[in-house]
Amino acid sequence: MTFVRKFELYGNTDQAQNFLETAKSGKFLFSFVISYTETCEVPGITFAGADKDSIPFTPPADAEYLHYGYCKTIDNIPMTPDGKPTPGVLTKSALESASIPHMTINAGSKILPQLPFLETGLSFGKNISAQNAMTDYQVSRAVDYGRIVGRNMASLTDCLVIGESIPGGTTTALAVLRALGFDAKVSSSMPDNPVELKNQIVNSALKRIDSDHPYSIVSKVGDPMIPFVSGMLSSASNVSNVMLAGGTQMTAVLAFASKIGFNLNNTSIGTTSYITNDKSANFVNLVEQIADIPIISVDPGLKNSQYSGLKAFSEGFAKEGVGAGGSIISSMLKTGNDSTKFLDLAEKEYHRLSTSL
Amino acid sequence: MTFVRKFELYGNTDQAQNFLETAKSGKFLFSFVISYTETCEVPGITFAGADKDSIPFTPPADAEYLHYGYCKTIDNIPMTPDGKPTPGVLTKSALESASIPHMTINAGSKILPQLPFLETGLSFGKNISAQNAMTDYQVSRAVDYGRIVGRNMASLTDCLVIGESIPGGTTTALAVLRALGFDAKVSSSMPDNPVELKNQIVNSALKRIDSDHPYSIVSKVGDPMIPFVSGMLSSASNVSNVMLAGGTQMTAVLAFASKIGFNLNNTSIGTTSYITNDKSANFVNLVEQIADIPIISVDPGLKNSQYSGLKAFSEGFAKEGVGAGGSIISSMLKTGNDSTKFLDLAEKEYHRLSTSL
Repeated sequence: MTFVRKFELYGNTDQAQNFLETAKSGKFLFSFVISYTETCEVPGITFAGADKDSIPFTPPADAEYLHYGYCKTIDNIPMTPDGKPTPGVLTKSALESASIPHMTINAGSKILPQLPFLETGLSFGKNISAQNAMTDYQVSRAVDYGRIVGRNMASLTDCLVIGESIPGGTTTALAVLRALGFDAKVSSSMPDNPVELKNQIVNSALKRIDSDHPYSIVSKVGDPMIPFVSGMLSSASNVSNVMLAGGTQMTAVLAFASKIGFNLNNTSIGTTSYITNDKSANFVNLVEQIADIPIISVDPGLKNSQYSGLKAFSEGFAKEGVGAGGSIISSMLKTGNDSTKFLDLAEKEYHRLSTSL
Repeated sequence: MTFVRKFELYGNTDQAQNFLETAKSGKFLFSFVISYTETCEVPGITFAGADKDSIPFTPPADAEYLHYGYCKTIDNIPMTPDGKPTPGVLTKSALESASIPHMTINAGSKILPQLPFLETGLSFGKNISAQNAMTDYQVSRAVDYGRIVGRNMASLTDCLVIGESIPGGTTTALAVLRALGFDAKVSSSMPDNPVELKNQIVNSALKRIDSDHPYSIVSKVGDPMIPFVSGMLSSASNVSNVMLAGGTQMTAVLAFASKIGFNLNNTSIGTTSYITNDKSANFVNLVEQIADIPIISVDPGLKNSQYSGLKAFSEGFAKEGVGAGGSIISSMLKTGNDSTKFLDLAEKEYHRLSTSL
């Protein structure tokens, strides 16, 4: 029961113990899926990116930062003017300290990252408050390509960790969850979750639904990330362990993946305690409604940080993203580090980033 | 010495024995690099593709065939009207029988494949008989991105096998080899090697060379595949074993890679006996001039085939391509198969392909 001190376990806790026990001696591969929904262009919906024009650059900038330690498509460091960094800081600290390899996958980002990445040819999603996100054909292609990529990547590792970056993605996730019949309250990248605005968008989007076929639902009110990552999970979970690394968006993936089928025995979801403790959402309960899988939550220990920018995560800012929670869990499993040690690594990286040009 | 029966060893044969001994119990990953040089549009230079207009489709079509078992960007099966198949038939039979995963990498193909692939953003090369292949900046970017991809992929396996498809690539390879000071006679995809025509193109290209800097040489008379795969080799050989799978083109890679540095101890080149026995070329001698590494040659046994289309490989048609030789070597190492067993697998695949619609 040494894990109990590091992680909080929910859902299928027996399977969680087994997973943690076997994963620690195996290999991890982190896949970072970047995507886009024009839903994020509704004013006030997301904090990912300083302003409307810069939002599409957030996913590729995060991919570049993970890879190079700085961004290429934007000039700035990925941090707000008052020093709140991208959650990628946590992901990068986690992956590097454990030498976990990672690969960026483009599943509909509006802007391409300036690094080698896995290309799927998927288009970004349309604004669901105004029109359908994509065609049924595009959903089907996203699932097919996801299956190909998932099988491929899972064959190269023992545990495939899947993180994502899609600005506005909690809103499309909420719409898909509601349309699939789940009572979802979703987290936000902002401390004051714009619940009213999200509900307004979701309600108008749900009016367009005229079929309970899951492909039709995702095409009308989803985004490209959801069917793509669901396809990945579907094939990868038959080959290796898979950890969905994220909060609300990954519950929408789980809900859609349940419709196309995946191997529950090899699947877990990993996130931060900022998500599992978020009173405005119902993450644990939601996952338990959807699938009997392990839910693993880690406290990154940032409330003890000397830097207010890192401390902000523990106060409701961002909470999760860029697969931070799952990356930290993987990293702690592989290195044996605890949150005190992780905080030290994250502070070093934060210091490097905030003092770089 | 059980390998002696299956493979012919040249170059650093001690290291070859060590490689074969350790590789057989490890994991393989096959990376298929597709690219393009407009040099292939010179009439009579290549057999890859039935006519000028179809040549650019050959690399993506091969990638699709490897992946799906049929092509998507072209309607036909990848076979000449008289039944000569793509060397991809050998690669596919080899990889599938040994469950070796593979990934397509686009390093300047004119046409994108219809499957998920690793994207580098590199442009195709210009016709070296008329102008410089690319800019120095493009060469440098190809090397940089190659290094990133190589390090990444090598971290996921024990032996990274690198194959390529670039129509017209033997001509640019010849030009780079000559410019780097090697006395090269290169193989061709046609039984009657159009040596005169190649020499004519190479000689006119070499006139543009005004510096002995390797980047300048490749930018003037090379193609995007050469610096990209050299970058891959450079980083990957510090992480895992690497086998360059190919003939003439891979000697140009070795020559350029020698200038940017790579780990000789982890590097080998694997090809078919149709290349090492080709009297119109000097493959073994050329590799020995360039680098003290193992040269592993396999006889796929196709001269005993009941199908004239497969037999054609042993009579000088294609000889190699799509990393066939290195894939067969990897496959035999992993499965323990010999050429008789491999011929059986290749014939089954040939039969399936030639009777498919």
